[in-house]
Amino acid sequence: MYGSEYNKVTDKIIEGLKDICGEDYVIHDKDSMESYTHDELSTAEVKGEYPEVIVKPDSTEKISQVMKLANEKKIPVTPIGGKTGLTGGMIPVYGGIGLLLERLNKKIEVDEDNLMVEVDAGVTMNELYEAVEKKGLTLPIHPTTGDSQVGGTIAANAGGEATLKHGVMRDYVKGLEVVLPNGEILKLGGKLLKNNTGYSLLHLLIGSEGTLATITKAILRLYPSSEESKFIIVPFDSGQNAIKTVSDMMKKGIMPVGIEYLEKETITHGQKKVNENWPTEIGEATLMILVSGENEDEILEQAQKIMLICQERGAGEAFLATKRQEMEKIMKIREGIAEVIQEGNVTGHRSGDLVVPPSKIPELIDKAKKIFNESKLEGTFYAFGHAGDGNVHIEGKLPEEGVDWNEVKKVRDKWIQEAIDLGGDITGEHGIGLIKKPELRKFKSKEELRLMEGIKKLFDPNNILNPGKIVPEDEEIERRYIKI
Amino acid sequence: MYGSEYNKVTDKIIEGLKDICGEDYVIHDKDSMESYTHDELSTAEVKGEYPEVIVKPDSTEKISQVMKLANEKKIPVTPIGGKTGLTGGMIPVYGGIGLLLERLNKKIEVDEDNLMVEVDAGVTMNELYEAVEKKGLTLPIHPTTGDSQVGGTIAANAGGEATLKHGVMRDYVKGLEVVLPNGEILKLGGKLLKNNTGYSLLHLLIGSEGTLATITKAILRLYPSSEESKFIIVPFDSGQNAIKTVSDMMKKGIMPVGIEYLEKETITHGQKKVNENWPTEIGEATLMILVSGENEDEILEQAQKIMLICQERGAGEAFLATKRQEMEKIMKIREGIAEVIQEGNVTGHRSGDLVVPPSKIPELIDKAKKIFNESKLEGTFYAFGHAGDGNVHIEGKLPEEGVDWNEVKKVRDKWIQEAIDLGGDITGEHGIGLIKKPELRKFKSKEELRLMEGIKKLFDPNNILNPGKIVPEDEEIERRYIKI
Repeated sequence: MYGSEYNKVTDKIIEGLKDICGEDYVIHDKDSMESYTHDELSTAEVKGEYPEVIVKPDSTEKISQVMKLANEKKIPVTPIGGKTGLTGGMIPVYGGIGLLLERLNKKIEVDEDNLMVEVDAGVTMNELYEAVEKKGLTLPIHPTTGDSQVGGTIAANAGGEATLKHGVMRDYVKGLEVVLPNGEILKLGGKLLKNNTGYSLLHLLIGSEGTLATITKAILRLYPSSEESKFIIVPFDSGQNAIKTVSDMMKKGIMPVGIEYLEKETITHGQKKVNENWPTEIGEATLMILVSGENEDEILEQAQKIMLICQERGAGEAFLATKRQEMEKIMKIREGIAEVIQEGNVTGHRSGDLVVPPSKIPELIDKAKKIFNESKLEGTFYAFGHAGDGNVHIEGKLPEEGVDWNEVKKVRDKWIQEAIDLGGDITGEHGIGLIKKPELRKFKSKEELRLMEGIKKLFDPNNILNPGKIVPEDEEIERRYIKI
Repeated sequence: MYGSEYNKVTDKIIEGLKDICGEDYVIHDKDSMESYTHDELSTAEVKGEYPEVIVKPDSTEKISQVMKLANEKKIPVTPIGGKTGLTGGMIPVYGGIGLLLERLNKKIEVDEDNLMVEVDAGVTMNELYEAVEKKGLTLPIHPTTGDSQVGGTIAANAGGEATLKHGVMRDYVKGLEVVLPNGEILKLGGKLLKNNTGYSLLHLLIGSEGTLATITKAILRLYPSSEESKFIIVPFDSGQNAIKTVSDMMKKGIMPVGIEYLEKETITHGQKKVNENWPTEIGEATLMILVSGENEDEILEQAQKIMLICQERGAGEAFLATKRQEMEKIMKIREGIAEVIQEGNVTGHRSGDLVVPPSKIPELIDKAKKIFNESKLEGTFYAFGHAGDGNVHIEGKLPEEGVDWNEVKKVRDKWIQEAIDLGGDITGEHGIGLIKKPELRKFKSKEELRLMEGIKKLFDPNNILNPGKIVPEDEEIERRYIKI
C-alpha cells in the first residue's frame, strides 16, 4: 500500500466543494446517499459503503477543480456512473468523495461527415443510441444495459452480445478527454482512424475502470445503420457439436453478430422462471444465433446457410424468430435464466465471467461441471455464454443455508485455473473492480502485477482515485467488503 | 535523461552472447553490420549508426538471456525486425547490441477452429499471408511491405490502405509474448475476443515501437477470405467535392475497403516517372476507391452505387479497373508518385504523415499549400493520402542546392500546428521513432509527456531497450542523427 493515509472530508472541504459545484450539487446527508453505496453486484456478496459526500459537477473544469482539491487534501474520490457494474468497481471503500458524472450529460454531437460522435461521459447509452439513430447511424454494439453511462462503459471496456462481429467498446473509442488524479485535463486522440503519436495512453485508459483518470468526454466511431437482425435457435445433441458449428460457419464466410450457448438445464429453469415455452425441442446444448443483413432476404439467405451447417453437425429442427413477439419471448427466457441463476446463494461473480478460446467452451464447461460435482458443495451447476466470443458464464446455485464458503472459494479457483490452462483468462467483460482482486493477484505473474501497480502509481501517486480497485493489495479492505 | 551511462560491449560480453546465441549467430565485424545501421528512412535525412555487435537468437528464452545480460551490464539493446520503418526507430544510436528477430521465425500455427494464428515475431508478413491463405483464411489488412516482420508491424501498429474498412494492426492483435528489458517473459492475452483482466499491457505495448519490450510471439485474429477487391478511379473538379463523397458513401451504408486521395499535380508527375497513362481524365482531385465483395457481381453493384454518389458531386467519368493489368498499372503510377516525391531534397518524413478527421483533408491540404507557397522555400508542393481514414501525406519537393533548412523546419511545424488545430495529430501510421521526437515534445502537453516518460521508466529503468526513441529527450542524439 502507498499513500493511503487519507484525510476525512471536513466542513471546510464541503464548503470548498460547494464553491466549485454549486450549493445544490453537494450532498452529504446519509439518507440521500444510499443509492451510491453499491452497483448491481449482488449485495449478498459484497457490503456497500457510504461516501462521505456526493458531488455533481456539470463540467470538466469543475471535475478538475474537485480533483485538485482532493489531491491536495489526500481525500479519496470515486467516480460514479450508471452503477450498472458487477464487480463493486464504484463502491467507495475508503469513503471520501463520490464523484457523480450524471450532470455531465449535455453534449451528444453527431458528426455525419466523419461518422463520429462526441459525447459527454455522463450521457446514458440509451440517450446516445437515440441521438445516433435519429441521424440514421449506429453504434453497432449494445454492451450493457442502456442505463449505463458512456464514460463507465468505456472505463469498463464493456462487451456484450454482438462482440463476435462487432467487437467491444475499445474498438469504437477514438478520442477521450480525461481528468487525471492531479486535476490535469488530457485530450487524447480525436476523430482519427489512425494515430501512432507515442504510447497509447488512450488504450491504456480504456478498461482501467476509473482508477487512472476520470473520463469526461469521448469520441466514438459510428457506422451506417442499414442492418436488421434476427435470432435463429438451434438445438444440438452435445455441446461439442454445437460449438464446432461456430467455426464451421466462419470458415464458410458467415460471421453472425453474436452466438449464445445454452445448456439444457439452464433453459428448462429459465422457462419455468418466466412461465414461457422455448420455441424448439430443448437439446443438450442450444445455440441462439443472431444474424444480420441489409434486408429480410439477406437475413433469410444467411439463416438458411447457417441451418444447413448446423444440420451437418446433427442439429435438431431450428427456429428462425422473424416476429418481434418471438424475439421478445426468447429474450425473456434468456433474462429469466440470468435471474434464476443469480438468486440466493451462488458461487458468484468472481468466477462467473471466464473467457477462453471459443473452441474450448465445451471443454471448460465439462471440466467445471466435474469440479463442482466432485466438490463438497451441494447445488446445481449452470453454464451459458457468448459461444462466439468465448466468454462463458458458469455458476453453481447453492442451498439457502449451510454453505461451506471455503469450499466455494476452492471450486472457483479451480475453475479459473482450468480456464487459464485452456488459454483463457479471469474476466472477459465484467472486469476486476473490487471483488476479483484476490484472483488477479493469485493468477497473474509478479511481473505483470508490478507493471500494473507501477502504472497506478504513475497516474495516481497519492492513490486517491477510486482506490482499492484492481491494484494495489489491501487485505483489510478485501476482508471487510468481500464475503469470502 | 536517466541511466544512460552505458558500458561498451567487451570481448567478455561477446563471449557471453556467443554462449547464449551460438558462435555463428553473434556478428561484430563492421563490414557485416552495414545493413543494420538504418531502416527505409531516407539516409539524406538521418545518419545511420553501427551497433557494436549483432545477435541472432532463435528463441524467446535466448532473447530473455540476452536481455538479462545487457540489463546487468547496462548495454543498450535495439530490436531489429524487417527494417522497413520510416522513422529511424531501429537505428542503434547508442551502439550496443542489435537484436535481430529474423531467426525467431519457425512458428506459424493457424487455428482454424478459433480463427486465430499464433506466429513468431520474426516471420515476415508475406510468409504469414501465404500460410494463412493456404487455409482459406485472411488477415484483412496489408499494412506494410511484405518484408516487414510480424513483431515490428505490431510494435509500429501499422495501418495501410485498407484501414477505413478493416482497421489497423491493433484491431487484430489478441495475444502477445514479450521479453521485458529485465529479461522477464510476459504472456499477455490469448486466443480471446474479450479480456478485461486488469490494465491492458497488451494495448500499451502495441505501437510502443520496441521501446518497452521486445515482441517475440503474437496471436492475431483471422477472418474468412471470401472477398475480392477492385479499384474505381474517379476524377473531381475540387478536393472538397471529392472528400464529401466519402461521407456520402458511408451514410448510404457503403464502406469501401480504402479510399486514396490524389491531387492533379501528383498524378501528372507520377505518370511521367513511370511512363504510363492514367486511365481517366485527370481532375483537380482524384479518388482511388478500393471496393470489395464476395464476388464480381457484388463488387459491380457496389461500384455502380459509388459512381452514382460521385456523379451527384459533379465527378467526371469514372473507371473501374476489372483486369489485373489495369490494377497493376494504377499501382505502378501510385508507387511512381511516392518515389518522385521522395527523391532528392524534400521537407521530409517529420511532417509527412499527418492525420486529421477525414472531412478536414481538403482544408489541411489548402492550408499546407498556402503555408508552403508563402514561405521562403522554393519547390513544389504535393499532397496525397488515405482520404478514407484521414491520413494525408504532404510534402514539399525542394531544389537540389541552397535549401534553407531552418525555413523547412518552420514550415513543417506550421503544418503540424494546422493538423492539430483541425483536430488531428502528428503521425497517423509511421510513428515517432527517432526523427519525430522534437515534434512530440513540442506539440504534446507536459502532462502527457510526463506519463509517457514514466511508462518508459517503469518498463525500462536502466533505459537499455531501444534507447533514444519516442522519449526521453536527448538533444545531443537528436543533433547528431537528425539533419535538421
